Amino acid sequence: MRLMRPLITAAAVAFALPALSQTDPLPSWNDGDSKAAIIAFVDGVTTEGGDDFVAVADRVAVFDNDGTLWAEKPAYVQLYFAIDRVKALAPQHPDWTTTEPFASILKGDIDKAFAGGHKAIAEVIGATHSGMTTEEFNSTVLDWITTAKNPETGRPVLDMVYQPMLELLAYLRANGFQTFVVSGGGIDFMRAFTEQAYGIPNPQIVGSSGKLKFDIVDGKPELLKEPDVDFIDDGPGKPVGIQMHIGKQPIAAFGNSDGDLQMLQYTCITDGPRFCAFVHHTDGTREWAYDKDSNVGQLDEGLSAASTYGWTLFDMAKDWKVVFPGTQ
Amino acid sequence: MRLMRPLITAAAVAFALPALSQTDPLPSWNDGDSKAAIIAFVDGVTTEGGDDFVAVADRVAVFDNDGTLWAEKPAYVQLYFAIDRVKALAPQHPDWTTTEPFASILKGDIDKAFAGGHKAIAEVIGATHSGMTTEEFNSTVLDWITTAKNPETGRPVLDMVYQPMLELLAYLRANGFQTFVVSGGGIDFMRAFTEQAYGIPNPQIVGSSGKLKFDIVDGKPELLKEPDVDFIDDGPGKPVGIQMHIGKQPIAAFGNSDGDLQMLQYTCITDGPRFCAFVHHTDGTREWAYDKDSNVGQLDEGLSAASTYGWTLFDMAKDWKVVFPGTQ
Ligand SMILES: [Ca+2]
Ligand SMILES: [Ca+2]
Repeated sequence: MRLMRPLITAAAVAFALPALSQTDPLPSWNDGDSKAAIIAFVDGVTTEGGDDFVAVADRVAVFDNDGTLWAEKPAYVQLYFAIDRVKALAPQHPDWTTTEPFASILKGDIDKAFAGGHKAIAEVIGATHSGMTTEEFNSTVLDWITTAKNPETGRPVLDMVYQPMLELLAYLRANGFQTFVVSGGGIDFMRAFTEQAYGIPNPQIVGSSGKLKFDIVDGKPELLKEPDVDFIDDGPGKPVGIQMHIGKQPIAAFGNSDGDLQMLQYTCITDGPRFCAFVHHTDGTREWAYDKDSNVGQLDEGLSAASTYGWTLFDMAKDWKVVFPGTQ
Repeated sequence: MRLMRPLITAAAVAFALPALSQTDPLPSWNDGDSKAAIIAFVDGVTTEGGDDFVAVADRVAVFDNDGTLWAEKPAYVQLYFAIDRVKALAPQHPDWTTTEPFASILKGDIDKAFAGGHKAIAEVIGATHSGMTTEEFNSTVLDWITTAKNPETGRPVLDMVYQPMLELLAYLRANGFQTFVVSGGGIDFMRAFTEQAYGIPNPQIVGSSGKLKFDIVDGKPELLKEPDVDFIDDGPGKPVGIQMHIGKQPIAAFGNSDGDLQMLQYTCITDGPRFCAFVHHTDGTREWAYDKDSNVGQLDEGLSAASTYGWTLFDMAKDWKVVFPGTQ
């Protein structure tokens, strides 16, 4: 009989393991503080009668996009889109060959083109994101993004979403949360792919925007995208975007840079059960390692705030078993 | 045997009648073209495999508020709120006793106060809807609206929602629709009562807005309401508001005035199954009778468009069995 016991135990373990992994809502997360903190938070707000219970209607979670849900290095995907549009539209704009920042883009000198910083970026976005209907723009983005590749890794940009964050989105939704994207990226740009990429429908996408103009052209109603900036959904703009689009304070917020600081403050500096976290880009092997000194996705003040307020840091190297879907 | 048949039939009818009325989704609507058109539309878009089937994700219905979901006569409820705020805040603004339009409001001469039209209204809204946090404003509106009464009928303003439209909202939602308010009214003003009044949560309220400013005051994050106008969700602004907040074209739109014309054009001048209707204020006995010549809720161009495009007119006197909840 003694001989049988280890065999029975081994069999029990063999059957138990698949069952356990089936019920793990976050299989791409390593066991550790981050995963435990997420699960404890969700258990708390969903336990009826518990001190931390939150009604389903108030389970609002907000997510930054670039660097939080998908990769933002070597530069924002939307910037590569704008650069490709400059090239595609150049024949209609002969003056661009002699006007910066367009001239440098057309010569392939991207660094020089954007040496002008925000102003140069705004000019390129304005020129490439206006002069068409919202419907036309949507098709253009969709056509582009389904074949676009990251210039450094060569991987399709749509494959460079973070698998652990997809699981987090699904886990929250399975627990009654409404998940929103709250990003500095263009709202019309994002909506071309966010439902497919993240399972988040258009009304739950909050972003930066240009002015729109309604008109009826050839008997057909349309919304024309104009070059003027309407709203910048970044930094102190993020709580404003949240109020405009959602109209209630979130109970969970996820970002990766100082541009998310005010969104996390708005969400977590308050009473009641709250969860705030920064994705900390610590993995130079599987992704990129950067924070304080990065020109894209700088995380500096945010790190101090996380330490002051006890927000969670998702340590990409340590916490994530997998970074991108279908990789190890 | 022949004698038995009518009896059986009578019994069947007796049992069938209560069952029929239980399943009538629009009990406050009289039988007629309007009710039949609504039901035919909903049946069409929900019949899987049918020509008019629309996926649940695309079942978006938009509703104007003033004059479409609740009464707007003798003037917008939000204007009465602003007037009461002027009176409440007057001690802190001694200059108002000599500055128009405030002076006339304080003297009780509302007509004179608003003789200046849009400019006077904007000034009063700016002065009474700013200088506090969104949270403080929300409580102020909620306190006010739960006791506010219509100056002509004496009924609580929250009781002057239209029972048939509440049934329409519920019927659409029961059939997989997402229902949105898209109103010229203030977004923060509406959100104080729209969930309670219409069962529509804050993220589904689209309205006019003032600028907001994020700040941390005494360690507490807050959004301060500023006096500058940010967005006017009226006329051609309605399709813009729809794109910003919803990001897809609705398949059903309901309004009552020319300010809704572009929203109905955007929704219904397109292929595919669509439903557009104006609430036509034809009932001077139970409500107010007005259209072309009204200073509030003018419906003129809209009537022509409805005739051109075959949109439905909800004839309040003829189509509605009941106007307000709990009345006959
Ligand atoms: Ca980011
Ligand atoms: Ca109206």
